[in-house]
Amino acid sequence: MRITVLFFALYSVLRKQSCNVKVYAPRLVAEGRARLRGRFSIETLLPSAGWVRRAWQPTEEDLYNSCGLDGVVFSRIFVFSLRVFSLAAIIGIFVLLPTGMVGGNELHEKLHVCSHLLDVSNQTPMEFVGRLWCHFSAAYIITGVMCYLLYAEYKYIAEKRIAYFNASKPQPQHFTVLVRDIPLHAGNSLSDTVEAFFTEYHPSDYLLFNFLVDALDDVRLPKSLCTVYRKLTHLKSTSSSSQNQNRSGFFGMFGKRVDLVRDYSKKLEDIEQNVRLVQSDSRRELKFFPAAFVSFKSRYGAAKALHIQQSVNPTEWVTEWAPEPRDVYWPFFSTSFMQRWISKLIVFVASVLLVILFLLVVAFVQSLTYLEELEALFPFLGKILKITVISQVVTGYLPSLILHLVAALVPPIVKLFSAMQGYVAVSQIEKSACKKMLLFTIWFLFFANVLTGSVTSEIEFLFDPKTIPSRLAVAVPAQVHICLHQVLINDIENFKINLLHFSLLMCDFISRHCCRRKDDKFEIPSIPYYSEIPRILLFVLLGLTYFLLAPMILPFILVFFCIGYIIYRNQLLDVYQPKYDTGGRFWPVVHNSTIFSLVLMHIIAVGIFGVKKLPVAAILIVPLPVLTLLFNDYCRKRFLPVFRKFSAEVCSYFARSIAFFYVCSCSMPHMVRFLFPLKRSERASNGSRTKKNPGFALLCGM
Amino acid sequence: MRITVLFFALYSVLRKQSCNVKVYAPRLVAEGRARLRGRFSIETLLPSAGWVRRAWQPTEEDLYNSCGLDGVVFSRIFVFSLRVFSLAAIIGIFVLLPTGMVGGNELHEKLHVCSHLLDVSNQTPMEFVGRLWCHFSAAYIITGVMCYLLYAEYKYIAEKRIAYFNASKPQPQHFTVLVRDIPLHAGNSLSDTVEAFFTEYHPSDYLLFNFLVDALDDVRLPKSLCTVYRKLTHLKSTSSSSQNQNRSGFFGMFGKRVDLVRDYSKKLEDIEQNVRLVQSDSRRELKFFPAAFVSFKSRYGAAKALHIQQSVNPTEWVTEWAPEPRDVYWPFFSTSFMQRWISKLIVFVASVLLVILFLLVVAFVQSLTYLEELEALFPFLGKILKITVISQVVTGYLPSLILHLVAALVPPIVKLFSAMQGYVAVSQIEKSACKKMLLFTIWFLFFANVLTGSVTSEIEFLFDPKTIPSRLAVAVPAQVHICLHQVLINDIENFKINLLHFSLLMCDFISRHCCRRKDDKFEIPSIPYYSEIPRILLFVLLGLTYFLLAPMILPFILVFFCIGYIIYRNQLLDVYQPKYDTGGRFWPVVHNSTIFSLVLMHIIAVGIFGVKKLPVAAILIVPLPVLTLLFNDYCRKRFLPVFRKFSAEVCSYFARSIAFFYVCSCSMPHMVRFLFPLKRSERASNGSRTKKNPGFALLCGM
Repeated sequence: MRITVLFFALYSVLRKQSCNVKVYAPRLVAEGRARLRGRFSIETLLPSAGWVRRAWQPTEEDLYNSCGLDGVVFSRIFVFSLRVFSLAAIIGIFVLLPTGMVGGNELHEKLHVCSHLLDVSNQTPMEFVGRLWCHFSAAYIITGVMCYLLYAEYKYIAEKRIAYFNASKPQPQHFTVLVRDIPLHAGNSLSDTVEAFFTEYHPSDYLLFNFLVDALDDVRLPKSLCTVYRKLTHLKSTSSSSQNQNRSGFFGMFGKRVDLVRDYSKKLEDIEQNVRLVQSDSRRELKFFPAAFVSFKSRYGAAKALHIQQSVNPTEWVTEWAPEPRDVYWPFFSTSFMQRWISKLIVFVASVLLVILFLLVVAFVQSLTYLEELEALFPFLGKILKITVISQVVTGYLPSLILHLVAALVPPIVKLFSAMQGYVAVSQIEKSACKKMLLFTIWFLFFANVLTGSVTSEIEFLFDPKTIPSRLAVAVPAQVHICLHQVLINDIENFKINLLHFSLLMCDFISRHCCRRKDDKFEIPSIPYYSEIPRILLFVLLGLTYFLLAPMILPFILVFFCIGYIIYRNQLLDVYQPKYDTGGRFWPVVHNSTIFSLVLMHIIAVGIFGVKKLPVAAILIVPLPVLTLLFNDYCRKRFLPVFRKFSAEVCSYFARSIAFFYVCSCSMPHMVRFLFPLKRSERASNGSRTKKNPGFALLCGM
Repeated sequence: MRITVLFFALYSVLRKQSCNVKVYAPRLVAEGRARLRGRFSIETLLPSAGWVRRAWQPTEEDLYNSCGLDGVVFSRIFVFSLRVFSLAAIIGIFVLLPTGMVGGNELHEKLHVCSHLLDVSNQTPMEFVGRLWCHFSAAYIITGVMCYLLYAEYKYIAEKRIAYFNASKPQPQHFTVLVRDIPLHAGNSLSDTVEAFFTEYHPSDYLLFNFLVDALDDVRLPKSLCTVYRKLTHLKSTSSSSQNQNRSGFFGMFGKRVDLVRDYSKKLEDIEQNVRLVQSDSRRELKFFPAAFVSFKSRYGAAKALHIQQSVNPTEWVTEWAPEPRDVYWPFFSTSFMQRWISKLIVFVASVLLVILFLLVVAFVQSLTYLEELEALFPFLGKILKITVISQVVTGYLPSLILHLVAALVPPIVKLFSAMQGYVAVSQIEKSACKKMLLFTIWFLFFANVLTGSVTSEIEFLFDPKTIPSRLAVAVPAQVHICLHQVLINDIENFKINLLHFSLLMCDFISRHCCRRKDDKFEIPSIPYYSEIPRILLFVLLGLTYFLLAPMILPFILVFFCIGYIIYRNQLLDVYQPKYDTGGRFWPVVHNSTIFSLVLMHIIAVGIFGVKKLPVAAILIVPLPVLTLLFNDYCRKRFLPVFRKFSAEVCSYFARSIAFFYVCSCSMPHMVRFLFPLKRSERASNGSRTKKNPGFALLCGM
């Protein structure tokens, strides 16, 4: 606890240093809201709680304006958990703990006391019935309250999502549908095919289409294009003219001064000129992708075209909502239906292999704690392991170090897997990665910790559904300490690291003092929802599973959520800039995971009563998971469609005939594609417009 | 076999008697195509194979014209099975059986020989490898061929379905969507709400709507209405004027002759008059259902309105395709979303209870074969059971009798359950019942026969997935005889009963000779797909599971499919009249069930090799089920959407602005509802049209 306070103090001091402002508030800098203290004062060296107040104060409205609905959903997870665990902690500490309290005040005993509390052997029947009654009521009350809160949250976020959609300005992606797997017959060009199809089947709604050409691969300029464009934008946004000049020599330190803006503008124009040359070269064959962005006259028209199956063959003319321009992920635009299907299968197999690999690592790590086994495996290590220091390191720190390293490798691997599944938007990839991470987190950080054993025993566990409750009931209480230590403590440290950004701080420090041309590479990070949400949901799982067994864990979880709430609000407002806005589509994941945690709590309760040979109690708990699952089914029917598709009522709200060109900003430098707006009648008039904005014109590809 | 030939001869003789024509060819009679032989000749008493030729000759086109796509699908099941099992029988008899043949020619030995064939103990390694190779190749070949045929069939039927939809005349149900759960706010009438909603959100497509009024409950005439109408239609269709006259006295035997047509027309006019009176009575409060049939100007408009979610709240304005007018099932029109959800849950619970009940019955029946157990349970039976005849009856015939009776009770119960789920069309109910029956048939006629044991052992079987392959591998070969006898023989008898219609024949005979007024009650039966399809699919399952173990069973199954093909074609063409046309939506059920059978075959193969301690062989089989499931997943993606919804291409094919009134013929006399076409502008012009056809006018409710 003291370390936590120290960390917070350190953060508040470091944050005040104006040289660190790009590490601790990059977003404020980018938006020009950062107060840069010009000169040194004693105040900047004193720790203060001002940042906590600033993170606490903003309303949900502010958060929404700053981070979109996803940020709101993220903070609602904390609000929801705080509500649930406040009640759970009150019930746990004031009701469950006293009934189980036999003696001794130490935490150690308290933690263990509840798991022994239903031991009938040394209790009178009356005492026992009373305790049973308490535990039952607690399980039923907490389930009821959670279901009510889950329902309220789901409803609240669904309403927010609809309101958000209604209130937003008409945006190109709402009028545009991405069509893939366009069938090409010999003799017909892609543009003719698309034009003919949509004018025939959507005559009243169809507006125009952009299709995708793999043009820049030939021009050999793609890599520099985006860098130049980004640098130019950055330079234009910073006002002071002195910064825009640089020496032309070695690392910008020698040579004559040049105007960077003019320099980059020139470069951009050269690239554009080159591209135009290539395009106007009629002999060159363009490599068309069998995909197109089709725009409609109204949101409703786009929704209609999206929801109705286009072709007789469901694997052709596959439609989906066009992603936000900033959210587009290019590599899989040209994939066909079959390729996507196969890559999904490959990803599934790869995930299974990853799980097995991770299980092997965990098994190896667990074997490290028994030096004898290690010696038997590697006899040549015998002498080395006899040295006390080494044996201590090997048994004490090495296992936790290896686990941490491997666990740190998992999120990027999982994200890579999701990216391979053929999604066309970063948000879709991260949502899919979030689900995978959730499975992974729950399985490894919970089950692998609880069910310490070999790979085979864990697989056996899955294949023997009858014994699951009783095995969990035995294993879960036994591992309270490990769970508390490994997960809770480690993760609060993780928060602090997240807050302090040590690695970034060091990089920034080095770059500022050793290499002076870092300014234009300055990038605002985006929050990795896919790895953060599962981590938080793990605590909901922990809190619920230990609610009946060891209520003393609940205050710790409450503290965790309080700290997390402040830290993440701070990060959302000052540090991270959202890269996309899914409109709260992460909430169904949170909801389902919470329902899973609840049902797991019920299964463990059944197991405990079974182990303690109280069949009546076990049977009386059974309706709880059934009711919870029914509640979940109802929620799925009632709210999930809102997150999947927009209804006629919502779409018609903005059914105005506004024409939009769907212009995608290039998110990956080496994958810049050209978008051709090819409605013939409009073709002629486009030339004049593109002159105004070279960046736009370039991307528009006219 | 001899009995089968005898039955066929008897059928051909009975069929030729002109007095039986209404039992054996009711459809031909109804359509006026039956050749009624006026006088007795010796030819009519000689058996002939003419009916077989007549059943064989018609092409698929004829079958389609006569029974719709469902009839074609039904006959394709036989064609598909014949193809598969011809190949399987050839492989089984000429390849698998010789490799397993050690000696002895009796069927008994042959049946058993293959299950012992992989016994390594008394074989040289080379022999064993050869046999292993044979069985492997057989498993892989049959799986490959089946997958190819399944793909071809799925594609063929999907194309047929699309062609059928394109070729059909514009029908009211293609332009109409059933809207349920219409939210009613105080002050707004139902008609205003519907009108406002659809004119706002579907301005270009919306045409008019009919809503449903519970009117005839007050008029107290519903029961007679349909009977009168049907009688009138029937009388008008039969030409001879002598039949249309009847005596007015007791049972039509005494009194003066009256013209029945005039009589019924008068009755119908009276009812209509009555209804009009009630309708025009403005003081009477109409009981509106919160549901409406909304018609659109084009098929495409209806499809668009169907596929897009209407309301922000997904439980309101729920849309689905309007069923065919003859297919409508009224009782659940007024149910709300919540009621349907709850009734589905109740049906689920009831189905589980039914399964448990049936398991108990099976367990009781199995205990009957052990008289000692029965005596121990019911001591007072001791003396009675000592009598030889009674003990023989109890152990020999009683179990099979009870099982047959209970099994006969299942289809109607299952159909009742499906009807309770809130469907609005008989076809939907029968499709749901078909799936339930399939589960039931496979579980009880296959697993319950194979895994003879107590209730608990069967439940344990499910909860112990690891041991499934080995347990099946032991149990399935041991029960060859039971399967052959109980299922194969019994079911061929079932065919014969189906063909001869003994019960109907008796009823008809009695009614013709004892009570002369049967003519107008004459009804054409419809084929109960929901109970017939699962029965046929059970044989596919049997054939596949015994393919490797006892190939001698395959010729029997081939004979079964040949006989079934002829009999069912005969029944489809002459006897049954389709009540609805789902457009081949039963095929996905058949496909999935066949895939299940294939995977079960693979699991048993894995089990056999496991039991024979050949781990390499067991592992080499494992890719087969995986590949089969992948194939199924591909088919699901490629073809299933065609059976679920119509695409833009298909719908636009007929996008003409034809206005249709969705007029439902009343399928259940006691549930007649009125349909009000309420587009105000059209109201005035409707009066004139309704005069022409009283039946139409009545149902249209003008």
